[in-house]
This record gives sequence, structure tokens and C-alpha cells, in this order.
Amino acid sequence: MKALLCGFGNVGRAFAEMIESFPDITLSGVVTRKGLMLGKNREFKTHREVSVLEAFHEIKPDIIVDTMSANYKDGEPSYSLYLSALNEGTAVITVNKAPLSLHYSEIVNASKKHNAFLGFQGTVMSGTPSINLRRIMPGQISQIKGILNGTTNYILTRMYEGLDYDNALREAQEKGYAERDPELDVNGFDAAAKITILTNVFFNTSKTIKDVKFEGIKGINSSLIKEKKEKGIKMKLVAKSNGKDVSVTLSEINENEPLYSVDYVTNALEIISEIQNITIIGPGAGPKNAAYGALSDLHIFRGKMML
Amino acid sequence: MKALLCGFGNVGRAFAEMIESFPDITLSGVVTRKGLMLGKNREFKTHREVSVLEAFHEIKPDIIVDTMSANYKDGEPSYSLYLSALNEGTAVITVNKAPLSLHYSEIVNASKKHNAFLGFQGTVMSGTPSINLRRIMPGQISQIKGILNGTTNYILTRMYEGLDYDNALREAQEKGYAERDPELDVNGFDAAAKITILTNVFFNTSKTIKDVKFEGIKGINSSLIKEKKEKGIKMKLVAKSNGKDVSVTLSEINENEPLYSVDYVTNALEIISEIQNITIIGPGAGPKNAAYGALSDLHIFRGKMML
Repeated sequence: MKALLCGFGNVGRAFAEMIESFPDITLSGVVTRKGLMLGKNREFKTHREVSVLEAFHEIKPDIIVDTMSANYKDGEPSYSLYLSALNEGTAVITVNKAPLSLHYSEIVNASKKHNAFLGFQGTVMSGTPSINLRRIMPGQISQIKGILNGTTNYILTRMYEGLDYDNALREAQEKGYAERDPELDVNGFDAAAKITILTNVFFNTSKTIKDVKFEGIKGINSSLIKEKKEKGIKMKLVAKSNGKDVSVTLSEINENEPLYSVDYVTNALEIISEIQNITIIGPGAGPKNAAYGALSDLHIFRGKMML
Repeated sequence: MKALLCGFGNVGRAFAEMIESFPDITLSGVVTRKGLMLGKNREFKTHREVSVLEAFHEIKPDIIVDTMSANYKDGEPSYSLYLSALNEGTAVITVNKAPLSLHYSEIVNASKKHNAFLGFQGTVMSGTPSINLRRIMPGQISQIKGILNGTTNYILTRMYEGLDYDNALREAQEKGYAERDPELDVNGFDAAAKITILTNVFFNTSKTIKDVKFEGIKGINSSLIKEKKEKGIKMKLVAKSNGKDVSVTLSEINENEPLYSVDYVTNALEIISEIQNITIIGPGAGPKNAAYGALSDLHIFRGKMML
């Protein structure tokens, strides 16, 4: 089987290494904004100055793996690539949140219509099972609830420990947990994109990020956090959905709630049904983690799920 | 497709109801120690006074679902039933821990040899994904670690809150969290059976329960728990494995460990690899929960895992 890797940043490079554990899959090329590199190499070399879509038509892969960065304007070039690929029965595995938070139903419908595999574990909580949990948890869900953004959770944890917002943000940037421009994390947009995707998966809906009411933690006051702490409460940025109302809100969490002990960059997802209430906790970001998310999808696509 | 349900206690009855969500599956019969009931009925009626194995040969099902109680002497009659079924290519779904903790490799080999589905999510943590998590989490694992027995965790939690052992046990019995004869729970045997199965799944080994060093919490002293509490430590019965050493030990858990906040009858499993450390928390018992575990297996067997 031939794979085309899209994007060659930290996640793409980590994935290119991991894919070697699948001897039946050949990495036939890597495409970035610079063009197409044929075969595999540690350093990127441009062999053809072509677009992502042109690279797809040249390589004719059985699988595309998208590790390109999110473009929330229109999800391109990934969105068009997915539709072209799925329409030809090519499997799509992605860690890129933008196309699925903007055009979920179009992409999923193309996958179903052409019976082409679509995997996107890495878009939410990276390698910590979230999307893929749904594959092994059938039945009706009443609510999902999670801490889906590591940057804001880190800042809130450090503020709980006594820092003010500016210092906590600066520290997060120094440690590589926040980007130089942290806007999409601290304003809640990143968490909103993720809860959009989760909602569609767990409630079989066609939401887009425009359906999500979200707030962030920008400039939040230390005194609020201190005041709540004295009452045994932590403030967390909680993404929540019941399939109808989808939101990201700065919320009070009590000591007996599963999300209470989810601190620093750790993420968590609570899945609530009539039968049970389960919580999964794990890292929500990191190049190897996201690559592992894509690898998990590949594992499922290759039918390796039997024990 | 035809299913034969084995056992008609609380789990079996709950499963018989849930299976109605699979319109392509017919419950052709229910077999218990009393014999075989043909078709489905709320109250058990004996239509044939036959053994489990004879019932299997009469019904010729595509799937057997075992909800019978655990027989740790030799795993019978389930063990022979599984081998007969798998040898004929019949799928086996079970929530019965005994056969798999005694004869794991024989059963799994029969499943592989005849390409017959084997699902056993319900044997560990009931409906909270544990066994089935491995299906969506490929790659090497360094360690697994969990609270796998609800009875002992309930007793330890209540002792942490101030009760002594006898009162905590009595309360657990009154609430239905402990059996009248609690021996297999409080001596650590139940957790040992579960960590045996998990070890085999996560490390691809052929352990039996005889390979597990286990201890329980019988008659544990309140003063020990109180003393540790003052140091910020909780005592938990932790099942642990790295694929070589498999144990169940009364362990000190610190506030910053994921298992610290797992209290009362809740169970949890930590899965540690080079890439990530994830924890799943949820109920570990209950008729509906175990039945849901079996239902999850059925979902996977029927190829319903695509999103």
C-alpha cells in the first residue's frame, strides 16, 4: 500500500518514523507548500513544484495522511484534497482540525458514499483515545464534557498555584505549551473546534464551529481563581455538548468531579450515558502524540483491531 | 445471525434486552444449568434438559454470549464450550473471567486458528473500555496499572473516611457491592484474574492466574489508613504488570497520581507507554455495565466500528 504524507513539520516527521512499524505500507511521497518530495528522506527536498492536489494525482496513494496546519478560513487545501481522495476510494487519515470543524458532514458523507476509510483521532486529544473511543462504545450518549485545550489548562493550573495571567502565559510560551500568538488557544476557539468534531461523532450531528458558543480565559483575574480556590473549587475551561447545545465555558469544578484533578497540559473527556459515566485522561498535544493518533487510525484501517 | 445466550442471571437478562438494538441478530436460545430455553422469554423455561455443550450443538449459533458465573476450578463448562465454538468458527463473547484467566492462550489460539471472533471486554471493568482499548491503541506498552476491584476499593474508601474494616465490609454487603461470601474480592483473587487477562492482551503473553503474586485487604488495620491519610496518602489495592511481573498489592498512592481520586466502586486503568500515559476511569461492575461490555464486543464483531 502506498501512502502520501501531507505536511512535514514535527508531527509529519514523527509520523514518517512511526509508519515504519507497518511493513506493508510504503511512504511514496511527502507534499508540503513547497511541493512534492518523492519517497522518504529526513530533510525535505522538492522534486516537483506542485500543489497538494496535483501531488495526490501524481502519486495515486491508497492512503493520505494530513499533518498540515489548520486553516480555519476554509479548511483548504485539505478540504478539497479529502473530497478528491475519498471520492476515489482513497483512505484519509488526518490530525488537522480545520476541515472537520468546518465541513464535517460533507467529508463524512463522501467517506460513507465511497466506503473509504476516514480516521481523525489526532484532531482531538492527539493520541489519547477520544474520537476512536466511539468506535468501541456503541449506543446512545447523553452528554460529553472535557478539557480539550492544554494551553489554557496549563495557564489555569499555574494561576491556581499563584501566578497571574501574564506570567502564566509567558511560562507556557517558554515551555512550548503556548504559541507566540496564543490567540486561538486562549480565546477558546481551539477547544470549540474540538468539541464540534466530538459532537458530530458522538451524537451523529452535522455541527460546524459556528454552532458553538465559546469563551476563553484571556486576561482572567487572579483574584477570581483565588477566591474559588478557598471554596475548594477550580476554574477550568470546559467544552460541553449534549448534541444540541455545544459550548466552551470557564466553569467551576468541584473536588468530586473527574475533571478536578486534570491539571497542566493534560486533557480529559467525560462520556456520560444512561449506563455509565467514563472519563479518559491523557496528553492532548505533542508531535509524537498526534502522530500516534494517526498511527492508531492506520491500525484500525488496516484491520489490525483483532486481539 | 443466531445467538445463544449462556446464563440468565442479572447480566444475561440485561444483555437479552440490549441485544434488541441489533435487528440482524436473533436470540435463538438461552442455556443455564437447568437446560435450554428456545427463543426468548422474560422468565426462564426449560424446553430441553441438556448441557451447555449439547445446547450449542442443537442451536448451531453464529455467536455465543457467556454470562455464566466464574468457575475458577477449571473454567468449565465455559472453557470446553469456547473451544468447540471457536473450532467451528462461531464467535465467542464473554464476561466470564474464569476461562480466560486460566486458559488464555488455548482460547486465543483457537480464535486465531479458525479466524473466529473472540470478545471479552466485560471480563475486566465491565463496560468501561479496557480490553477493547487495546484494539484502538497499537504499539508497545511499558506498564499497566489499575484499580480493578470495586468491592475492595469501596471498603478502602470508606475506611479512609473513618470506618473500620468490619463496618466498611458490612456496608458494602448491604449496598450490594460485596457478596455474602466476599472472599474472592477481599483476598485479591478477583483483581488477580483481571490483571492476568489484561497482561495477556497488552503484552501478548500467556500468563495464567498462577503467575500473579497477589494480596488482599482482609482485616487491614484502620490505624494504618489513618496514619497514611495524615501524610496525604491513600492506600489502594493496585493491580500492576509490565508483562513479566504481575501483581496485586496494597499500595500507597499520592495525590498527584491518576489513581488517587478513584474512589468507592469506581475502577481505573493506567496505560503507560513511551509516547503517553493515559488513564480510563469508570464503573467496574453492575449487570447493565457488564452487559454493555458484551454489547460493545458485538458492535465490533458486526463491523460497526466505522464512524
